[in-house]
Amino acid sequence: MRIVSADSAAAILDEKFTPMFLVASASVLVNPPYREACARLAAPIFKEVANGYEVIVQEALLCRDLLDRVKADVVHLDMSLGSVSIQELSPVELSNARVSSRVRQHILKLLPTLRKIAGDIKRAHGLEVLAIGKESVPVRIAELTAGAEAVLFACVKVAQEKKSLLLGLPSTCQPKIAGNKICLHSLLAAEHDVHGCAEDATGILNKVNIVETLNPCARGFRALKIKPLS
Amino acid sequence: MRIVSADSAAAILDEKFTPMFLVASASVLVNPPYREACARLAAPIFKEVANGYEVIVQEALLCRDLLDRVKADVVHLDMSLGSVSIQELSPVELSNARVSSRVRQHILKLLPTLRKIAGDIKRAHGLEVLAIGKESVPVRIAELTAGAEAVLFACVKVAQEKKSLLLGLPSTCQPKIAGNKICLHSLLAAEHDVHGCAEDATGILNKVNIVETLNPCARGFRALKIKPLS
Amino acid sequence: MRIVSADSAAAILDEKFTPMFLVASASVLVNPPYREACARLAAPIFKEVANGYEVIVQEALLCRDLLDRVKADVVHLDMSLGSVSIQELSPVELSNARVSSRVRQHILKLLPTLRKIAGDIKRAHGLEVLAIGKESVPVRIAELTAGAEAVLFACVKVAQEKKSLLLGLPSTCQPKIAGNKICLHSLLAAEHDVHGCAEDATGILNKVNIVETLNPCARGFRALKIKPLS
Repeated sequence: MRIVSADSAAAILDEKFTPMFLVASASVLVNPPYREACARLAAPIFKEVANGYEVIVQEALLCRDLLDRVKADVVHLDMSLGSVSIQELSPVELSNARVSSRVRQHILKLLPTLRKIAGDIKRAHGLEVLAIGKESVPVRIAELTAGAEAVLFACVKVAQEKKSLLLGLPSTCQPKIAGNKICLHSLLAAEHDVHGCAEDATGILNKVNIVETLNPCARGFRALKIKPLS
Repeated sequence: MRIVSADSAAAILDEKFTPMFLVASASVLVNPPYREACARLAAPIFKEVANGYEVIVQEALLCRDLLDRVKADVVHLDMSLGSVSIQELSPVELSNARVSSRVRQHILKLLPTLRKIAGDIKRAHGLEVLAIGKESVPVRIAELTAGAEAVLFACVKVAQEKKSLLLGLPSTCQPKIAGNKICLHSLLAAEHDVHGCAEDATGILNKVNIVETLNPCARGFRALKIKPLS
Repeated sequence: MRIVSADSAAAILDEKFTPMFLVASASVLVNPPYREACARLAAPIFKEVANGYEVIVQEALLCRDLLDRVKADVVHLDMSLGSVSIQELSPVELSNARVSSRVRQHILKLLPTLRKIAGDIKRAHGLEVLAIGKESVPVRIAELTAGAEAVLFACVKVAQEKKSLLLGLPSTCQPKIAGNKICLHSLLAAEHDVHGCAEDATGILNKVNIVETLNPCARGFRALKIKPLS
């Protein structure tokens, strides 16, 4: 199975490690054995965390855009609704789903837009768009890819504004820089060979100083202190 | 403590990674420091996943059979009911247990048979049979052992039928082949030294081709694509 | 942020691996990047596990005592109540918290004492005391530190009483002895660089024999069999 998926990741934190702004979305194509992305599209967000649920629409659009360039068999979105097809997701079905009422309200509001995008993908490519969420390895790879792109976006911001920032990484991962690539490697059990990468085409990684720290207020999460170079 | 336990593991998956048939059960004897099996019994299942709950009876029987050959102090079954003794498990107690009503119905149906087997074990060997389930390291070792035996059973099937199949492994583990042994090593935190093995007495591992993949639709699970040679 | 936190850890187990007595509490100062303690205070407990909830008061006192010697910005206690400030925690708020009614009763009983200690810390040092619990990395480091100190306390007990004992370690960690230090290293995903240590000032580690085992009845937990040397 060739799977296209998308997710958003990384947040700018205040000095108390509270998430303030979501940083990046990415869509990816993942082929067997499902360890990394074969193709990717990324976009910055810098949207307030409080409105974070709306990024699912941007994620669906990034999947649609990636499908103009690559072939796939199915689409995985980061909504944990038991792998139901978005096109077949009715408000009635949603009312039976195991989600909090707050999440249900958010999804209800976005459902018409999401169903339209899923319909577009079905017509253009014949593919189902599944609300599989946290069960999907490709969604995890999209999350790590979005996180790696977020590091680059944050470095650009630091270099432009000449001001340090603290970037919260996705859950349970660690960055490695090799050449002009930055990869986030999963630290989860049974994901030791799973990672998401971004290419530093402009050499921004050489214009900042990056120090890794644990997030003391959220176990399993790490953060990067990114500083401008003098 | 010398502990006898049993579990079933591994499933034949369809091309969308949906589990179709459960593959193997195994009982094991586990001694301190509780990292591997000292003795084992295995049996194929190839039963539909939908009826998976019934394998608990075969598991109890495999424990009883293993106790004809080895000495132990207690028996652990893969039912997560807070370590209650099966013999003392009444329908009333079960109605207070923290399990879904679906699981409760399944257990209720099998309880007379399970209590009979537990009674046999008590009379013959003086041992308690505990419904400890996911809290038990020996049950995990039985799961990994059943998974390793399942790989061998699946290889035989592939070689006989000259048809590839996709075998879903137990949660959070990875296979290693060394000589004529296949071992599933746990990838869980704090289980890095825990594994379950099976002996390839007939050389079947040399008659197939095995490729490991992540299960893209179930995070934490890996699968093996097993193909006939030439 | 400089964070002072405290926790209690390790239990003496009976031969069936049932926890009998809690062993040690520790408070720690943790600075960026939040991997280990910069300063610590420890105290033995040897209190019955059934009354374990009362140790939170001793933990708060150990934080207060440590703050007489070190500077910090905030205090983290091992109560998982969403990072609410202890001073602002009213019985009404507590009744809305997501905890079992049993835990709520325990906390209610201790709340006046805890609020008094939090008030002392606020007046003397101007710091908030947060009920952050399992989300806090410094609380985890306090747990591992308390566990390391507990190994030393248990070794003293074994040497004095010339009687073996079985010590249950904190969740998902493994001990390493280097010179006159014993460290508990976290085995959790994304905590591979987190540990807590204790200094063996009296050479007690040389007077006992220590063997590691998995706890067969509690997955993720390891135990130490500590024996007197001849």
